[in-house]
Amino acid sequence: MSSNDLQFKGYAVHDTKDWDKFQVIDFKPKEQGDHDVDIKIEFCGVCASDVHTITGGWGKPILPIIPGHEVVGHVVRVGSKVTEFKVGDRAGVGAQVLSCFKCERCKTDNEQYCTNGVDTYNAKYPNGDVAQGGYSTAIRAHEHFVLPLPKELPLEEVAPMLCAGLTVYSPLVWNGAGPGKVVAIVGIGGLGHFALQFARALGAEKVIAFSHSPDKKDDAMKLGATDYVLTNDKKFAETWAGKIDLIINTTDVSDAIPLTDLLKTLKVHGRCILVSIPDEKLPDLQAFALASNGALLGGSKIGSKKDAVSMLDLAVKKNVKSIIQVLPMREAGTAVRNVKENKVRYRHVLKVDI
Amino acid sequence: MSSNDLQFKGYAVHDTKDWDKFQVIDFKPKEQGDHDVDIKIEFCGVCASDVHTITGGWGKPILPIIPGHEVVGHVVRVGSKVTEFKVGDRAGVGAQVLSCFKCERCKTDNEQYCTNGVDTYNAKYPNGDVAQGGYSTAIRAHEHFVLPLPKELPLEEVAPMLCAGLTVYSPLVWNGAGPGKVVAIVGIGGLGHFALQFARALGAEKVIAFSHSPDKKDDAMKLGATDYVLTNDKKFAETWAGKIDLIINTTDVSDAIPLTDLLKTLKVHGRCILVSIPDEKLPDLQAFALASNGALLGGSKIGSKKDAVSMLDLAVKKNVKSIIQVLPMREAGTAVRNVKENKVRYRHVLKVDI
Repeated sequence: MSSNDLQFKGYAVHDTKDWDKFQVIDFKPKEQGDHDVDIKIEFCGVCASDVHTITGGWGKPILPIIPGHEVVGHVVRVGSKVTEFKVGDRAGVGAQVLSCFKCERCKTDNEQYCTNGVDTYNAKYPNGDVAQGGYSTAIRAHEHFVLPLPKELPLEEVAPMLCAGLTVYSPLVWNGAGPGKVVAIVGIGGLGHFALQFARALGAEKVIAFSHSPDKKDDAMKLGATDYVLTNDKKFAETWAGKIDLIINTTDVSDAIPLTDLLKTLKVHGRCILVSIPDEKLPDLQAFALASNGALLGGSKIGSKKDAVSMLDLAVKKNVKSIIQVLPMREAGTAVRNVKENKVRYRHVLKVDI
Repeated sequence: MSSNDLQFKGYAVHDTKDWDKFQVIDFKPKEQGDHDVDIKIEFCGVCASDVHTITGGWGKPILPIIPGHEVVGHVVRVGSKVTEFKVGDRAGVGAQVLSCFKCERCKTDNEQYCTNGVDTYNAKYPNGDVAQGGYSTAIRAHEHFVLPLPKELPLEEVAPMLCAGLTVYSPLVWNGAGPGKVVAIVGIGGLGHFALQFARALGAEKVIAFSHSPDKKDDAMKLGATDYVLTNDKKFAETWAGKIDLIINTTDVSDAIPLTDLLKTLKVHGRCILVSIPDEKLPDLQAFALASNGALLGGSKIGSKKDAVSMLDLAVKKNVKSIIQVLPMREAGTAVRNVKENKVRYRHVLKVDI
């Protein structure tokens, strides 16, 4: 397909009450810029963020909305100043499509925290253009927010790494997961199944899977867990008290996060990093829970381009795999319902069918 | 006074409902050990922890209870294996009197986090002996938990450093307060007035005082603040958004901690460390508040002996001062009421009068 044939059509939700009813619409991409890359999309992963947004859990979205920020395909057009890509390259887009490039955060490879950043969907560009996501035929984005994809990774498998993978990889690296460290992953789902693998790939001594579900044990152990712990058993916090350096919590329903118990399992100055954003407030917390071991409770927001490139490199070197269930894009409604109902093992990926 | 004359008498609370009614009682100190040091007390600081404990805010205490864990005086007896002290030495005791000496925490200068530690009061030794605090004539403690006091610091001024000072000094050091860093101190009281001074003494570039009270500004600036910010003005979080490396929160009433706003003021991966323990749960928190800048919310528990020794050394070198109001120990009731009512500028110290 040449760039002249590129159509911008996508599966959109028109009302948060009908969050699983998608209709194909035409949409206008952002105005073409000299640094922009147009990608013909082949696959898009389905992220819990999509569900939080289209249901209105994170607030009223811009409607109609085309979600999707785990976008992969091939480059079909590049702006005059693009240096990193050429037509025909494999390329992807994650959860962000612009930042200011000028602030301290942007200048220190923390562009995901830029306060003038533009999300991949449910967001507006400075000139008012609406950003729409990857449940669609094409996306246009600044080359800094376009990722080169290693040829060793199948496109449909790399898609979920661009948000789910990066969201766990970045805090693992930033918070010191590596040789000699005991790392725990809470929630074995889309994010968790990558977190187990990346923690091992980074060389952590122990990787503990904390889960509510006894039936995910075999998968978790295959993905690199050294221990599988059921958090329904209230004694887990005593058993693991003071033993863990770093917890990555991927559970995104507040009631299901045993926060005070998790903090008990940390070593002195250990860290519990929340990478999911529940609709609800976090569980109640007493200051004692942080003071008794000098623990740190933190947040993290996706990752930088630098993080993403090193993640994909590590995924190739250490054979990190995506476990996915591919559906045609017209079944987006089924996919988001499955995410909401926690039925996915471990990531839905939509194949473009428009 | 010789060691044979040493009497153990103290001002005790007998009922949490009568938390400001102190009566002198005789008490039995812990069994004498080879590593123990007996100190004839001259002064004891009055800490907010005393009030949380005697009011039952942190749970039902062991009654009758003699509070006080900012204890200073002179050594009057040493056990046969004591190497660090001799009779006549100036010496102090902070908020802890024993740890196991065997666990990883004890072996890595984190003995304040030992899970088998014994607090200075409202605690029992492994053999059942009750630990009583410093609103009293004498205290006996293992030499590791006895601090040598520099001759340059007046005894009554060093007393509040042993808990209030250490509780802020330790997290300032652990969390990187120093040259080039922007540090904020929330709450200008017993802990806060030390925190401002220690942050400057450690070389922080800016030290911001966050307070509810416009009338503490002059004091805060004299103590080393570079900026004074009223947190009643809801715009403070926008003004300071993304500018602070480290916040030390000393406010110990949950309703008075503007937690979400404080987190907004942090740089990427900045830290907010809570050093006080409110009776109530912490303010409600959304995961967004931690994710938007990758912030870390932490706790801290007093400090190690190593921290305490380096704190006292820095206090001498950089002329850190305690601002105290000395009362005779029989006025302990007035002192704890003043703490509860937030009337102290900035620490009460009781002078032994039994």
